[in-house]
Amino acid sequence: MNVVKLTDKRRIRGERSKQAIVKAAISCISRQGLHDATLERVAKKAKVSKSLVAFHFKSKTGMLAAVLDHQETMFENGWDTILAGNSVSTSAKLLELLDYDVRFSIEHRDYISVWHAYWGEPEGSSLYRNLSQPRDERYEKDVRRLLSILTEEGNYNDINITAIERGITAMMFGIWRDSHLAHAPNDYSNGMQAIYAYLQKVFPLHYKPKSFRNKNSL
Amino acid sequence: MNVVKLTDKRRIRGERSKQAIVKAAISCISRQGLHDATLERVAKKAKVSKSLVAFHFKSKTGMLAAVLDHQETMFENGWDTILAGNSVSTSAKLLELLDYDVRFSIEHRDYISVWHAYWGEPEGSSLYRNLSQPRDERYEKDVRRLLSILTEEGNYNDINITAIERGITAMMFGIWRDSHLAHAPNDYSNGMQAIYAYLQKVFPLHYKPKSFRNKNSL
Repeated sequence: MNVVKLTDKRRIRGERSKQAIVKAAISCISRQGLHDATLERVAKKAKVSKSLVAFHFKSKTGMLAAVLDHQETMFENGWDTILAGNSVSTSAKLLELLDYDVRFSIEHRDYISVWHAYWGEPEGSSLYRNLSQPRDERYEKDVRRLLSILTEEGNYNDINITAIERGITAMMFGIWRDSHLAHAPNDYSNGMQAIYAYLQKVFPLHYKPKSFRNKNSL
Repeated sequence: MNVVKLTDKRRIRGERSKQAIVKAAISCISRQGLHDATLERVAKKAKVSKSLVAFHFKSKTGMLAAVLDHQETMFENGWDTILAGNSVSTSAKLLELLDYDVRFSIEHRDYISVWHAYWGEPEGSSLYRNLSQPRDERYEKDVRRLLSILTEEGNYNDINITAIERGITAMMFGIWRDSHLAHAPNDYSNGMQAIYAYLQKVFPLHYKPKSFRNKNSL
């Protein structure tokens, strides 16, 4: 029994040190770009030895993959909670998901900077394509499903679901970029107002005119 | 007279070598990120001496600023040509501008990679905020002006011009990101379909259902 407990403790400690290193890597990348996030620098930032970093991630590529996975998992957890939760309606659920998306970019500005760093280099872009895009495609599928339900519910004509979803997804990436570059107090309301104006035009029976204020917590 | 001609020739030659170095820098950044685009590496790529690069740009920051200026000027020239040109209508002009925007991202994928590299680092983001954002704000103003004219022309109710423009601009950055990451043959039609679906919902009297095919040249 004691042996099992010891192994468990070791596993938990290992997981914790891994998480601390990933956080240090995010901090390094968002401050200095992808190139300067060497195993040495990240180890120094995380206050651990370089050999521990190498033990956990094998190589810089392994570390960069773990950073992407961490950020994506953080996003995914919140998304899935809303998706599985009890929303009062499909239109409310879609709005909650998009609201979550906008808030995420404001609460994790360093993540947005990191994603841009990946997209700005061939190695980073390639890692993103392999590791993150399958997840992105799943969110897009979730959105398309909700858009289909709304279209049926409202008996709307002439809705190109693929094009609408692509527009909303693209808009969200643009809003993320804005909140990363602007860091302005009205980033939340600006983003939500843009998204909501779209929903209102496409699904007028579901979304009535509304304005957004900045939340105190943001 | 001869002295003047000689000075002119020198100026032209200087301008040409500057342009060649900027192009080499764009190639370096899009392949290796912002950090690795040192004056040495760019000089080697451009097949000139490091001292010539230093003569033209003073420092790496000067070179990075010149790269931004080059990309922005390329974009601006095309935008302004359409803006000043004779379009058959305001709705056609807006569509031409947005079509230009989508095509630009496909014809200059390396530029999109470079912009992401800037947004992924504090120094790059700061240069972008200072040098490029004033231009971005001007494009946004141009779009708002066209949206206002359309709103009046069609007597549309309940159009939040600021929110619609912000949505279109954000969508465009997302479409740029997509075409940079995807490099797919249908990037053009996907992007245009997303933008057009939006215009059609907001200004139904101006934009009738339409589908986009990939242009042979893309």
